[in-house]
Amino acid sequence: MTQDPLVIFTPSGKRGRFPAGTPVLTAARQLGVDLDSVCGGRGICSKCQVQPSYGEFAKHGLTVHDDALSEWNKVEQRYDEKRGLKPGRRLGCQATIQRDVVIDVPPESQVHKQVVRKRAEARDITLNPTVRLHYIEVAEPDMHDPTGDLERVKAALAAQWEIPEVEADLAILGQLQTALRKGGWKITVALHHDAGPRPSIMHLWPGLYEGAIYGLAVDLGSTTIAAHLCDLRTGAVVASSGLMNPQIRFGEDLMSRVSYAMMNETGADEMTAAVREGMNTLFGQIAGEAGIERGLIMDAVFVCNPVMHHLFLGIDPYELGQAPFALATSDALRLMARDLELELHPAARAYLLPCIAGHVGADAAAVALSEAPDKSEDLVLIVDVGTNAEIQLGDKTRVLACSSPTGPAFEGAQISAGQRAAPGAIERVEIDPETKEPRFKVIGCELWSTDPEFATATAETGITGICGSGIIEAIAEMRMAGLVDASGLIGSAAQTGTARCIADGRTHAYLLHDGSAEGGPVITVTNPDVRAIQMAKAALYAGARLLMDKRGVDVVDRVVLAGAFGAHISPKHAMVLGMIPDAPLNKVTSAGNAAGTGARIALLNKAARGEIEATVRQIEKIETAIEPRFQEHFVNASALPNAAEPFPHLAQVVRLPDVSFNTGQTEDGGRRRRRRR
Amino acid sequence: MTQDPLVIFTPSGKRGRFPAGTPVLTAARQLGVDLDSVCGGRGICSKCQVQPSYGEFAKHGLTVHDDALSEWNKVEQRYDEKRGLKPGRRLGCQATIQRDVVIDVPPESQVHKQVVRKRAEARDITLNPTVRLHYIEVAEPDMHDPTGDLERVKAALAAQWEIPEVEADLAILGQLQTALRKGGWKITVALHHDAGPRPSIMHLWPGLYEGAIYGLAVDLGSTTIAAHLCDLRTGAVVASSGLMNPQIRFGEDLMSRVSYAMMNETGADEMTAAVREGMNTLFGQIAGEAGIERGLIMDAVFVCNPVMHHLFLGIDPYELGQAPFALATSDALRLMARDLELELHPAARAYLLPCIAGHVGADAAAVALSEAPDKSEDLVLIVDVGTNAEIQLGDKTRVLACSSPTGPAFEGAQISAGQRAAPGAIERVEIDPETKEPRFKVIGCELWSTDPEFATATAETGITGICGSGIIEAIAEMRMAGLVDASGLIGSAAQTGTARCIADGRTHAYLLHDGSAEGGPVITVTNPDVRAIQMAKAALYAGARLLMDKRGVDVVDRVVLAGAFGAHISPKHAMVLGMIPDAPLNKVTSAGNAAGTGARIALLNKAARGEIEATVRQIEKIETAIEPRFQEHFVNASALPNAAEPFPHLAQVVRLPDVSFNTGQTEDGGRRRRRRR
Repeated sequence: MTQDPLVIFTPSGKRGRFPAGTPVLTAARQLGVDLDSVCGGRGICSKCQVQPSYGEFAKHGLTVHDDALSEWNKVEQRYDEKRGLKPGRRLGCQATIQRDVVIDVPPESQVHKQVVRKRAEARDITLNPTVRLHYIEVAEPDMHDPTGDLERVKAALAAQWEIPEVEADLAILGQLQTALRKGGWKITVALHHDAGPRPSIMHLWPGLYEGAIYGLAVDLGSTTIAAHLCDLRTGAVVASSGLMNPQIRFGEDLMSRVSYAMMNETGADEMTAAVREGMNTLFGQIAGEAGIERGLIMDAVFVCNPVMHHLFLGIDPYELGQAPFALATSDALRLMARDLELELHPAARAYLLPCIAGHVGADAAAVALSEAPDKSEDLVLIVDVGTNAEIQLGDKTRVLACSSPTGPAFEGAQISAGQRAAPGAIERVEIDPETKEPRFKVIGCELWSTDPEFATATAETGITGICGSGIIEAIAEMRMAGLVDASGLIGSAAQTGTARCIADGRTHAYLLHDGSAEGGPVITVTNPDVRAIQMAKAALYAGARLLMDKRGVDVVDRVVLAGAFGAHISPKHAMVLGMIPDAPLNKVTSAGNAAGTGARIALLNKAARGEIEATVRQIEKIETAIEPRFQEHFVNASALPNAAEPFPHLAQVVRLPDVSFNTGQTEDGGRRRRRRR
Repeated sequence: MTQDPLVIFTPSGKRGRFPAGTPVLTAARQLGVDLDSVCGGRGICSKCQVQPSYGEFAKHGLTVHDDALSEWNKVEQRYDEKRGLKPGRRLGCQATIQRDVVIDVPPESQVHKQVVRKRAEARDITLNPTVRLHYIEVAEPDMHDPTGDLERVKAALAAQWEIPEVEADLAILGQLQTALRKGGWKITVALHHDAGPRPSIMHLWPGLYEGAIYGLAVDLGSTTIAAHLCDLRTGAVVASSGLMNPQIRFGEDLMSRVSYAMMNETGADEMTAAVREGMNTLFGQIAGEAGIERGLIMDAVFVCNPVMHHLFLGIDPYELGQAPFALATSDALRLMARDLELELHPAARAYLLPCIAGHVGADAAAVALSEAPDKSEDLVLIVDVGTNAEIQLGDKTRVLACSSPTGPAFEGAQISAGQRAAPGAIERVEIDPETKEPRFKVIGCELWSTDPEFATATAETGITGICGSGIIEAIAEMRMAGLVDASGLIGSAAQTGTARCIADGRTHAYLLHDGSAEGGPVITVTNPDVRAIQMAKAALYAGARLLMDKRGVDVVDRVVLAGAFGAHISPKHAMVLGMIPDAPLNKVTSAGNAAGTGARIALLNKAARGEIEATVRQIEKIETAIEPRFQEHFVNASALPNAAEPFPHLAQVVRLPDVSFNTGQTEDGGRRRRRRR
């Protein structure tokens, strides 16, 4: 008795013996090899293309002969004539196994494709879409065995796709009979596989549908709403777009929005309407950019902080404004997009990631999904800086999270010359330690301010103020140049030896740029600016340090800065200020918009949803407001970089001048600090 | 070692031993005894009242002593003072077992109460409601273990009611935080237990809700919509109401509505809007009658024929107008009532029974649920007469069903003096076999027309026409009196010897009533009237006979007439016409509105839904249109009572005169019949 032919699939390495004449697709399915198919093996969708390899395979102890697969049949010939098959390719549903063979499944034929992420350290996303297309051939009605058209569609899905139960709503029922007859009892069904306990029919196309379907990954921030439009077949981002959150007119920061809801009877509803309207504007915009029908957007994932979460869902955020900061719901939500008044495909779904705690929202969960501290071998501190900083510390054994109220200083608010990061804003600063003279860069121009071309290059934008990353660098450079002491006091011209240190009431300010000659602003860093940044960074550091206490460590292996702000902070300057714990500088990296990336992962990978839901339940939540040591850490962290903690890695790179400008006369910095807490 | 006390519950007979001190409710739950509770054993809802029995129980070999249960505790005393406990009653959650005891669970303390049906032969309905109230005490939020309020509600339902998973929609999320705080973390939750794979939270009340909740059983007919409003706690019908189907303006019968949809682009949508609007009118009306808020109506069950089913759901009935009569869906449907635009509780559910086939709808399924042919020991034929007759034949071994196109003659349409059953319509007829003189009754008057008081009693309504049951009796009486022959020809005055047989074109008519002296109509039974009834009854009989062929029988054990029309037909007269197969007259009964009763069963008993869904799948569907023998049976059944079948039971009761009025001149009856088929 001769053995059945052996089939080895690459890259999976899955192998098995099948009777001669077995189609490659059938073998792949039986072995669980990831080989795509929309038409279910009828030779019309071409998704199951494979590449047989011929010759000697010493590794497998196998010789593959030229006749290992069946010859081209008519279906393949017709397909090749009409659409063209790449050289060497076969249709997996048509080619049958004749002798031992090695078959490669190219990436585009895999359902679970790898979506490559740009950052080197990031893991790729495995495509595992929630919405899939299934071509079916449906039995015609039979008077002797009368069943509904829907019941025969269900039977076809069960028989041809092994999907035993599906849901269909009234809209689908209303379209079903026409679609079936128009398609000659052949239709393509879009199924949502994460809509509930059973897959749900979202759409019907007569015949084989070969077009694209799309999904949205949305990062709903207090200030901006940003969205990526993804092709759900490939995982590719086809357009990205953003919009100011229209809720800004009700309050710049979260707490002012919560109070707007408290003070105005319809306040919460107005803000809900505003954010949903903003979403729809954004979705129209992004669909226009990509040149697609927005009705082809069938899934959407949202990440946001708890207040935005509640307002987006239409829940009054009242309870989030006061202890114990109770969320209406913390679990992930699977909703109909239309219940959120979103104008997408009529059956489009919305998925909201779980919230971690009353101050640590679905955006933090998305960061956890993207940066995966729970899978990290080394101990990683992840900091997402915004009005609140969400902080996570952990490794694969244990993850902790907290939120810390940094306030809006890092976003340029509460800073005398502060502004949002926009063209004309100073974003990089250097101060010569000898001359105490600064040079800087503004957003929209690559030149330093000392460059002869700088004035011309910035003529249009002007030099309008200083953004968050700019103020961080300015103060850190001032500390390194000996213009500000460890307690945060700016020295006088006499103390520092530079006329740029000018009197400013009872304290001093450092003149960064005088644009008055050109009719522009005078940009200084004032002592209250330094105080504001001290408060903000002390809150951030104290939160991180608290998690380190809880974890029982004094150092972390690496630091990840998440968020748009994190992407623009210089690690060295952040460490000079003591914003983040001491670590080797090359171990401080930026993850960019990790929350948005997390949303994209949850959009493209159904399994990732379940994973992050389980992970979030495991994360230990620390509430800084009720932790006694938070106050102690905060006070220590008010100093630049810190009154209590050593920064040995920083010391290897930077020597901070041991200056002190406290003359005993100007004590208001210390008093203010005490009053504020 | 002494044994634990023995507890015997009646009427269930369930028994078990429990440690002294076990609350009665706990023991009942562990034994699976049906003892109600809304508050979950906190002594506030009083639903778990039980009646201990004392003394000798020879049957159980048990003596119950006075101290078998604990003494009254404070909770019981307080409850008795405030609300009063019936003598001998105890609260099952407070009274604890001390010694052997026999405990009766009175009907009002059972969840699964029996709802008594009026007819002697009908089985009672077991209450097993889809919507149940659950009082819970919810953990307060804890900053150290931050979870959402919803998640703690879910945990409470799991811990206090053993309901592991529930769904909640956005509306519930929006109300949750306020309700919890208003109720001091105690709320009553209404759960729908038949909404999908998981129970769904429909409503939240702060604290303990002790009010009623309601459901609707709706029989959506082509002509009328009838609804029963039921108290879901007791199963009682608290109001019943009906309304003309507003779709009548688009066509009297189903096929004219299907053609309206075919001929007018928005026709189907208009009819959908009309029937939904009619429903809402009816629901307002019925809630008004019962004096309840319609927002307390939380569940609704609908039964209807396939065309009404599709139009109600918003599905174009086009396919139902032509072979193969394909339904868009045949399975039972569980929907949100709001998706059908019904103005009930915002989270109210709608349940539609399954359809049996393209012509045999959810109304027939409801009849099957009510009359349960699949549970019958003897062979029962169930006939629901309307524009289509739905016919079921079977017993517990096998059930068959078909529909037969009787047309609207039984409803008084196509009859010269025909009218709907309304006051003034002749509904009963007797003809003296000697004098050939008639007497009759009209709807709204109990007197025969020969009564001296009759004219006065009917002065207000008048004598306006003849309804469906009236025409049946009239023609049957004419047949018995020798005025019409077996072929359906009415004799002339000369042939019959009565001047009431008057010439009417080429045929004759029988003068039933001449109201012209009082300005009223002349009411005759014409030969075309007889022909119309012949066609209708032949279709009905042929359908029944076809099922008997399929089942391989020539006789049935009993006949059930369902529907409003069936309730008014005299079995004897129906059998004289040969509408139904021959059977002992006392074996022909009326089930009243069996479809409506089926709807009520499905409303009150969740398990009945699953049962009828399974039953419908088992029913063998026969399509009369493609059965060759149907035509043969139809032709035979055109005769009065039948040209081929013997009617031995009928012959024992009635002797039909052997007359023939065919003179060879008037053959149009025969020709017409051939043309028609």
